[in-house]
Formats: sequence, structure tokens, C-alpha cells
Amino acid sequence: MKALLLIAHGSRKASSNQEVADLAAKLKQKDHGFDLIEHAFLELTDPKVPHTIDSLVNSGASHITLMPYFLAAGMHVTEDLPELLDDAKTQYPNVSFKLLTHLGAAQQMPEWILGFAQDKA
Amino acid sequence: MKALLLIAHGSRKASSNQEVADLAAKLKQKDHGFDLIEHAFLELTDPKVPHTIDSLVNSGASHITLMPYFLAAGMHVTEDLPELLDDAKTQYPNVSFKLLTHLGAAQQMPEWILGFAQDKA
Repeated sequence: MKALLLIAHGSRKASSNQEVADLAAKLKQKDHGFDLIEHAFLELTDPKVPHTIDSLVNSGASHITLMPYFLAAGMHVTEDLPELLDDAKTQYPNVSFKLLTHLGAAQQMPEWILGFAQDKA
Repeated sequence: MKALLLIAHGSRKASSNQEVADLAAKLKQKDHGFDLIEHAFLELTDPKVPHTIDSLVNSGASHITLMPYFLAAGMHVTEDLPELLDDAKTQYPNVSFKLLTHLGAAQQMPEWILGFAQDKA
């Protein structure tokens, strides 16, 4: 089973965390090609990444794609997430993990921004 | 003249700020429908938003679209940016300003994420 895990920073502001949960709910409603989609946070709020990885593996996930919902390659993206990936690989050697680049580095980002801005300007 | 101003938070990490500058450079190369495109930061690094607004107006911008390059509606998005907008309107009453919702609230975000994740998973 293929799983997508959307990873956000986490905020002290509950509404910001809810935005991420709502986004994950919207992803689930789309035609997405994954068997499971969940979200998790790095800091400040739950569910945390290791907890959600446990849950996905317990649900039968054999391939987990970690998608950093970050615009900039700060320390969280360059250090914390690779560490979490290493821990997950050690804990679940029979599961295939893939850590994507952060969303801000998506090649499509310029098109996304212009599409959004042109639509609303 | 129509201008697009991409606004990011700004980081202590020079490479993160450079990501934003690089992104703005990529936007300029696209078929974008704006006469001017610039980027600016809220904090920690230059150019700051008011400085870049001055520069756009001096370059002849009459319509400026402010595009928050943020994924979450934290205090910067809900308080700082509307304040900057008010200041700009007061300073330049003959210029039309429009503050877009932050990128994370774009209706297209679920499609963008899935397109990116499916492509790379």
C-alpha cells in the first residue's frame, strides 16, 4: 500500500494547524493514486511525524512518501526531516520511504504562483 | 503599469532568502501579464516590503498586487501584511493595491501537492 504523508511545521496557532488538517482532508477527496494520505507536524502540535508513520505502517503502508509542506529549505527541511527519515528506515527496514524536496523547490512553483496571481490580480 | 510583489518572511539563512530571489527571477522569465515583478521580505533581510513598494511606484506601477508567499495564516499574514497594505494605501493614494490570500489558501493547493507528489513518489 502506498501512503502520502504531508509534513508541516506546526504552529502555536490552532487555526494554522487546522489549515493543514483541512488540506489533508481535501487531498483525500481527490483522485490521488495513494492508498492512504495523512498529515503530521514537526513541532508544537500533534500528530507528530513518527507517530503518524507508526500509524501508516500499522495500516499496511509499504511505501511512504514524505512530502515537506515548507516553502524554504531551513534547518527543518535540511536537517530534521532527513533525521526523521533515517529513524523511520531503521525502525521499519521493510518499508520503502521517500523524502521529497520541499514544496517551495517544486519546478512548477513559478507557474503555480503566476496562475494564482493572474487569477486574482 | 501592473506590478506583482512576492512577499516572503525572510530568514537568517542566506540560502533561504536566495531561494525567494531565484523564484522571483524565474517568475520574470515566464509569460506573466505583469509589467513589473519584484520580491520583498517582512523581516530579517532586505529588501523590505515598503522599500520595494517605493521602488515599484517610482518605476511607474499604478496597480500593485501583493502576493504572500506563506503557507499558513499566522500573525504575519493576518496582521502584519494588512498593516503594510494600509500604510501603502495612505502613502500612495493614487496607486491601487490588492493583497491576495496567502499561497497556502489557494484553492488549487490540493491539486498542486498531488501533482508534485504523484510526479515524484
